[in-house]
Amino acid sequence: MTSDPPLSDAVESTAEDIASMEIRGAATIARAAADAIAGQARETADGTTTPDEFDRTMRRAGRRLYDTRPTAVSLPNALRYTLGRMEGDDVDTLRDSVLAAATAFTDRLDRAQNDLGRVGANRLRDGDTVMTHCHSTDALSCVEHAVDQGKDVSAIVKETRPRNQGHITATQLRELGVDVTLVVDSAARRYLDDADHVLVGADSIAADGGVVNKIGTSGLAVNARERGVPIMVAAQTIKLHPDTLTGHTVEIEMRDETEVIDEDDRADIGDITVENPAFDVTPPRYVDAIVTESGQFPPESIVTLMRELFGESADRPWEEPDATTADATGPTA
Amino acid sequence: MTSDPPLSDAVESTAEDIASMEIRGAATIARAAADAIAGQARETADGTTTPDEFDRTMRRAGRRLYDTRPTAVSLPNALRYTLGRMEGDDVDTLRDSVLAAATAFTDRLDRAQNDLGRVGANRLRDGDTVMTHCHSTDALSCVEHAVDQGKDVSAIVKETRPRNQGHITATQLRELGVDVTLVVDSAARRYLDDADHVLVGADSIAADGGVVNKIGTSGLAVNARERGVPIMVAAQTIKLHPDTLTGHTVEIEMRDETEVIDEDDRADIGDITVENPAFDVTPPRYVDAIVTESGQFPPESIVTLMRELFGESADRPWEEPDATTADATGPTA
Amino acid sequence: MTSDPPLSDAVESTAEDIASMEIRGAATIARAAADAIAGQARETADGTTTPDEFDRTMRRAGRRLYDTRPTAVSLPNALRYTLGRMEGDDVDTLRDSVLAAATAFTDRLDRAQNDLGRVGANRLRDGDTVMTHCHSTDALSCVEHAVDQGKDVSAIVKETRPRNQGHITATQLRELGVDVTLVVDSAARRYLDDADHVLVGADSIAADGGVVNKIGTSGLAVNARERGVPIMVAAQTIKLHPDTLTGHTVEIEMRDETEVIDEDDRADIGDITVENPAFDVTPPRYVDAIVTESGQFPPESIVTLMRELFGESADRPWEEPDATTADATGPTA
Amino acid sequence: MTSDPPLSDAVESTAEDIASMEIRGAATIARAAADAIAGQARETADGTTTPDEFDRTMRRAGRRLYDTRPTAVSLPNALRYTLGRMEGDDVDTLRDSVLAAATAFTDRLDRAQNDLGRVGANRLRDGDTVMTHCHSTDALSCVEHAVDQGKDVSAIVKETRPRNQGHITATQLRELGVDVTLVVDSAARRYLDDADHVLVGADSIAADGGVVNKIGTSGLAVNARERGVPIMVAAQTIKLHPDTLTGHTVEIEMRDETEVIDEDDRADIGDITVENPAFDVTPPRYVDAIVTESGQFPPESIVTLMRELFGESADRPWEEPDATTADATGPTA
Amino acid sequence: MTSDPPLSDAVESTAEDIASMEIRGAATIARAAADAIAGQARETADGTTTPDEFDRTMRRAGRRLYDTRPTAVSLPNALRYTLGRMEGDDVDTLRDSVLAAATAFTDRLDRAQNDLGRVGANRLRDGDTVMTHCHSTDALSCVEHAVDQGKDVSAIVKETRPRNQGHITATQLRELGVDVTLVVDSAARRYLDDADHVLVGADSIAADGGVVNKIGTSGLAVNARERGVPIMVAAQTIKLHPDTLTGHTVEIEMRDETEVIDEDDRADIGDITVENPAFDVTPPRYVDAIVTESGQFPPESIVTLMRELFGESADRPWEEPDATTADATGPTA
Amino acid sequence: MTSDPPLSDAVESTAEDIASMEIRGAATIARAAADAIAGQARETADGTTTPDEFDRTMRRAGRRLYDTRPTAVSLPNALRYTLGRMEGDDVDTLRDSVLAAATAFTDRLDRAQNDLGRVGANRLRDGDTVMTHCHSTDALSCVEHAVDQGKDVSAIVKETRPRNQGHITATQLRELGVDVTLVVDSAARRYLDDADHVLVGADSIAADGGVVNKIGTSGLAVNARERGVPIMVAAQTIKLHPDTLTGHTVEIEMRDETEVIDEDDRADIGDITVENPAFDVTPPRYVDAIVTESGQFPPESIVTLMRELFGESADRPWEEPDATTADATGPTA
Repeated sequence: MTSDPPLSDAVESTAEDIASMEIRGAATIARAAADAIAGQARETADGTTTPDEFDRTMRRAGRRLYDTRPTAVSLPNALRYTLGRMEGDDVDTLRDSVLAAATAFTDRLDRAQNDLGRVGANRLRDGDTVMTHCHSTDALSCVEHAVDQGKDVSAIVKETRPRNQGHITATQLRELGVDVTLVVDSAARRYLDDADHVLVGADSIAADGGVVNKIGTSGLAVNARERGVPIMVAAQTIKLHPDTLTGHTVEIEMRDETEVIDEDDRADIGDITVENPAFDVTPPRYVDAIVTESGQFPPESIVTLMRELFGESADRPWEEPDATTADATGPTA
Repeated sequence: MTSDPPLSDAVESTAEDIASMEIRGAATIARAAADAIAGQARETADGTTTPDEFDRTMRRAGRRLYDTRPTAVSLPNALRYTLGRMEGDDVDTLRDSVLAAATAFTDRLDRAQNDLGRVGANRLRDGDTVMTHCHSTDALSCVEHAVDQGKDVSAIVKETRPRNQGHITATQLRELGVDVTLVVDSAARRYLDDADHVLVGADSIAADGGVVNKIGTSGLAVNARERGVPIMVAAQTIKLHPDTLTGHTVEIEMRDETEVIDEDDRADIGDITVENPAFDVTPPRYVDAIVTESGQFPPESIVTLMRELFGESADRPWEEPDATTADATGPTA
Repeated sequence: MTSDPPLSDAVESTAEDIASMEIRGAATIARAAADAIAGQARETADGTTTPDEFDRTMRRAGRRLYDTRPTAVSLPNALRYTLGRMEGDDVDTLRDSVLAAATAFTDRLDRAQNDLGRVGANRLRDGDTVMTHCHSTDALSCVEHAVDQGKDVSAIVKETRPRNQGHITATQLRELGVDVTLVVDSAARRYLDDADHVLVGADSIAADGGVVNKIGTSGLAVNARERGVPIMVAAQTIKLHPDTLTGHTVEIEMRDETEVIDEDDRADIGDITVENPAFDVTPPRYVDAIVTESGQFPPESIVTLMRELFGESADRPWEEPDATTADATGPTA
Repeated sequence: MTSDPPLSDAVESTAEDIASMEIRGAATIARAAADAIAGQARETADGTTTPDEFDRTMRRAGRRLYDTRPTAVSLPNALRYTLGRMEGDDVDTLRDSVLAAATAFTDRLDRAQNDLGRVGANRLRDGDTVMTHCHSTDALSCVEHAVDQGKDVSAIVKETRPRNQGHITATQLRELGVDVTLVVDSAARRYLDDADHVLVGADSIAADGGVVNKIGTSGLAVNARERGVPIMVAAQTIKLHPDTLTGHTVEIEMRDETEVIDEDDRADIGDITVENPAFDVTPPRYVDAIVTESGQFPPESIVTLMRELFGESADRPWEEPDATTADATGPTA
Repeated sequence: MTSDPPLSDAVESTAEDIASMEIRGAATIARAAADAIAGQARETADGTTTPDEFDRTMRRAGRRLYDTRPTAVSLPNALRYTLGRMEGDDVDTLRDSVLAAATAFTDRLDRAQNDLGRVGANRLRDGDTVMTHCHSTDALSCVEHAVDQGKDVSAIVKETRPRNQGHITATQLRELGVDVTLVVDSAARRYLDDADHVLVGADSIAADGGVVNKIGTSGLAVNARERGVPIMVAAQTIKLHPDTLTGHTVEIEMRDETEVIDEDDRADIGDITVENPAFDVTPPRYVDAIVTESGQFPPESIVTLMRELFGESADRPWEEPDATTADATGPTA
Repeated sequence: MTSDPPLSDAVESTAEDIASMEIRGAATIARAAADAIAGQARETADGTTTPDEFDRTMRRAGRRLYDTRPTAVSLPNALRYTLGRMEGDDVDTLRDSVLAAATAFTDRLDRAQNDLGRVGANRLRDGDTVMTHCHSTDALSCVEHAVDQGKDVSAIVKETRPRNQGHITATQLRELGVDVTLVVDSAARRYLDDADHVLVGADSIAADGGVVNKIGTSGLAVNARERGVPIMVAAQTIKLHPDTLTGHTVEIEMRDETEVIDEDDRADIGDITVENPAFDVTPPRYVDAIVTESGQFPPESIVTLMRELFGESADRPWEEPDATTADATGPTA
């Protein structure tokens, strides 16, 4: 184990760029990781490696990449997808399986937003009004395709404190020619009676169907259910969070308090605590459909898609095999 | 009718000051109106008036005051309370009944916030955390009395966009020694699991039990019910809206859009609509108790208190008697 | 007791006409009963009667009338209102109290539909759409007053099987100039998203807030709550059912099966049971407001109005005083 | 104030007996207190007392009695009812008003269980099955009257751990000839599908409509609502808790842990905490009707009855008048 | 592309018959399409075709059939099932795969109603009462098998306006010996307390779990949930609507207004709109189980069965391959 | 068929031991059955058997074992898993497939509780309090792993009448160092406000997502949902009940009445019925996650795992093939 050869430049430089956040954004990270894995496969297969050595090296490459940012949801997905499809009895077959998986994965990434936009657009009818929260290019893709289909769509845009991403959403919807009404977050329930859909993106989606998204999504969803308005979540499958298959909860980032209140105001008030969580979790019973590039799903079924794409619960193909964490669904699955 | 004598200076100057908004604030208006009515009663009785003339003059005074600001909820309440208790067969008795009612009304006003604060404080237990929305001195009075009772109370304060009245609430709670956590409005559902009560004030309360309060109250209440947190509304009885007895809905003020977005940002986004309603209506099924100086009531019973204090549906004692709008509950009520 | 003098012609002929259903309809019966009571009071006081005899005779008159149709809800209300207000130490006072009550009661009847229509109209906004079930002149009065107030109101009319009273409602709404959409009863949930109010009448209203109305009302109300549409019940106070104060449930009439299926079709199907209940009971939690000529009330508070107008639980003023059924609220109430 | 004369023997001995718990049980305490107040009124009026002295002495008697057991809900009710109706300008009138109130109160007590039983029985139909929790003679009175009305009633009796009062209920229902099925508390939801009513008593009832009753009632009520089974609470009006008008929460007694687990078992388990609260609070939205001797009420309206019988929020007629706690509803109420 | 040879007679004549509606009914269309595809496969393979040509011809046959009635849900299912399983490197293998799939599909069709009937019957217990809406042979199959299992089943049959298909259901249930009670649609909520199941069929079922069925189903389901009665949908898998995987909503047919009101009545009422939608959509949260020939499923999981049987979202195997609509789940799925 | 050779000793002795309950407990039965099937496979393959004979003998072995205790849920799962994976064209391949499946199944069994414990532990946060019902080693494994992860976990333990399995749970939690509070079952709702999770095991889990567990689980889950507390079910996959795929309902055992009430008490009460069901069914909408050794699942998706592990609806591989019960999902599945 001490004599492991160095990993490929592709892997090393990608790892460094992810770690230094030169590579950032869910899709960009995922693509870079898949490309690096492909690079490693090409280089490793280019020698006198045995199948076992190939396998071991590829997993090491996976670990190297994974360890740079273990909380980024799209990174392990890229690794699960590519390494999880590695199979064969000889090195060429092993390499080809990895390369094919890497290509399939990046092809899917290329098309994903477009494909899910078409799916989401099909749920919208001519004349519908959507209420949005925060800013999501996946959600906007649904509106864009609906507009392309010739549908007249209006939008009620929540400003989304503390960072007012609703302003970006409003700007981009205006560019699509959509009528926009801007409201403060607290006005949501009043305007839900004018909305035909709540349409939001997702930061990540858990195996139990919980949707992690910008703080305020869950409160909006509860109100939308109460008002009889369906809730649609638009999310590429790289947002599915396979760690949650094993019950892991999604860590909610706490952001800086200066987003909420400036230092002068804070000083005026006196000694208070400011809490500024970035996200919350919407339970599946408050979501009607999750729209992905693989079609739409009730949130309670997303676990099936997650396992199909990214492997079953204990499959972390970059980890050392270990008897106690072997494939939890057994050899036959 | 042309020969009606002029009204007293008390009434005229009060009417002018209400109209010019020199007199403002629910309690201040109510007190001024009651005092003016008392002044008129003293002056009118001071002569050779007949009982009928007295009655007619007093109603005219009521109309004069009412017309200055017919949408202020506390103004008609002051008139209903004082003129609605006018009774007697001679001028002295009539005058005394009005003076007694005016005194009772202003005494009640003097004590109201204090009295309801004690009631609300009794609902809080030592160690409880309240979540607040907007700023209400009635709601704060409940916390203040709880602190005076030696209870340790914490608060989660929603900032309450667009005007951030939560900052005022936070400041005043700090002055009471209460631990304060400030959050954006969208974070409410996440922090409801840490709250034992939602505590808000009211702008006005309708006969059907609907609570008109700062925009965002209804969405908070729906979430609080979903999370199992009881909702308490603190409101003096001058906030009860007797016009709603006859089905009138409460007009919701639309405020300026610059409260929501500054003109530059708006211009950047392009041609959008900004909606900025000041209030919303929380249905009674999402409120657990309305705390008043007359004790606490389920919202579905507040109509009984409203009729007891301010008269029955069609009683607008300042109006000319009219066959078609005569006392709707009949001569016996 | 054997020597009781005969009752007045007014009472006897009214009793006969109610029994023979020559006098029918809730308001018509109520008015006739109040008039007959007044007639008896005038006749009985016209002699050498003692106060005790007057009291006894009036109660006998009440019993005579009551027994003709004990299940008609407006009949006991007329008796409770008029006899329940009988008081005095001498015959003249007793008589005058009854006459005043009878006049008050019939005056109220004259104005009731008009007055409640104004109240209900105030709940409707310009541009609103109401969904109706069955046919109710009280409910129509609300729409009529809204139209008179210059509001544009549309209606979705459920046909209301088996007797299609929706056709009558549609006709009368058309006469008011209201846009009407007719749907089958099963289509209600689909069209609730286009409705701003459910607006129905009531056959009777119970002390626990339950609304007895045409079969299908409760199912509509449950769906309206699920869809976020408020439910308004328009009903004159003669529909309040004081027997329910003492827990009596309202008997639901079973109507003829030929209303549901003609005899040929029934014979074709074979030996089946047809159930055709005329009414059902909507629990108060599915009703937002009951609109009466005394103003609007949450259904949970209607018991207070019921007791105020028609006396407390055990007050059946036409019955012989009896120790075991004496005023259940005690001497002080 | 130092020279206050001694109170009557009636008051002193009753106070001692209540304090020593020789007098116990809600109705027994209430009756004893009313009788003692009457005794004091007779004795005090029997001399050269001034009206003021009479008033002061009566209030002192009230305080003496109240202080013996301030948490017993029926004791302050007896004092509120009797002292709250004391009025008059001379001692005889004052005395007579107190004596009349005391008589009215005890008469009401005599009839209460019988009267409410008839009300509750009217809610039951022939063939109905009730599910019971704990043991309540008020609830049993409803079944007894239903049986007397010739109705066939069955019962599903929850055993009601930890003290198994369900066994007493089962025994008494058997004596009425009712078919009884006994189940453990956890089986309630399964058997709710066979029940037509949940029927329970109350320990006390709060102004906000909350029903304090044996631990487990609230969980049963939530399940009954979910299963579509109406919930009826049978309770004499002496159970209404006027302190809750001013927001006071009802203290829940914690009982001995040996009721839950015997000492040996506890020792075997190791160092654990045992919590054994006697009661819980059922929110009004889970109760359909409260059945009292004054008729049935939705829980949201019980506050009206409470104020009518026992006075308004701040009326504690045994207390020294005090400006800051003067009648909160004002002089006119 | 211009030189494509003519399709087989089997395909052409079937296409014509579907277009002319000589072939109609979900199962009949599905079987005819599968048979035609098998016929084409046999004919095309019977020559000197290359694998590519075979593939292209089969897809053309699919398009020809699909275009005759693109909204019939069972037609694309037959094509997806048969063409989606076409695979092989030589023509014989390709042909055999299609023939095997066609046989499997029609065998499944033969058994489907019987198989699902057994599944549904297993959910019914001896003595149960089902409430039905409209007429569904799939739903009736469940009752028939329950009766065959020796269970005593009763039925409450809603007449199902406007076309009274409940009469057909009633007739067929009588023929099975089932006790039938017929009620108007509005009586459903009242009789749900007597029902152990709601049992309905489906017109089609969407990927998000929505059940498209006769208008009135969704309102019934909402009431059934409120009353605690489970809702079972019986539907063969040819009713699963794969287009909905890509978010397409199901078009709801608007039927002729004369089904709702005859022309004379309509003329009498005046100028009204009549809306007569044939179907509505029941959200999955109001359905407990969908019973198919593949077993029972929660509605939220039906998407998994849909993808397993009929392919993933973008698989429309009769379409020209196209980069932008390539298999949305990627090459690996 | 008459000349079937005797089955192996392994099968016969295991069958006898299961029948005599010498082998008992879900996991023990499952392991014994898998071992016996493996033994039979080894013995049968050890001769001159044809593939057909091998297949027939293995199915006979399956039937022999199945018939010993057809209601034990883990027994058919062992048979489905091992026989359902039997495949091959020659006897050696057939045997090896069975042996591999048996090994995989028992390996899974060995790891299952441990693996699911880790999954469940991941759902718990440091400082969380769980509320338990009954006793489940699967549920305890979740707490144990959380403690091993260094989390501080507290527990509120319901005693779980009638057999007080809560005492066992309390004892074992104490051994893990967990703080335990013991309460009666009726106290659950009151203490849910102090709980972060409800954590229970399962007796079996149905295809429609219903969780069969100790009586009282469903009532607890309804209350937990009402209080906003998530509900976690810990269950190994051998608890999944494949018969429910075909709609079979799970038979609920009725246990002896002496568990509920001793004979003396029962005699004292008189002639009553005691019902003592061992289990109830919690609908999936009241469960948030089912934690298995294959990861966590929303209850609505468990059917997918069930079919993956144990075969599709009609797959009872020990049964004689039969045209009418052939694989309900068709040849292609």
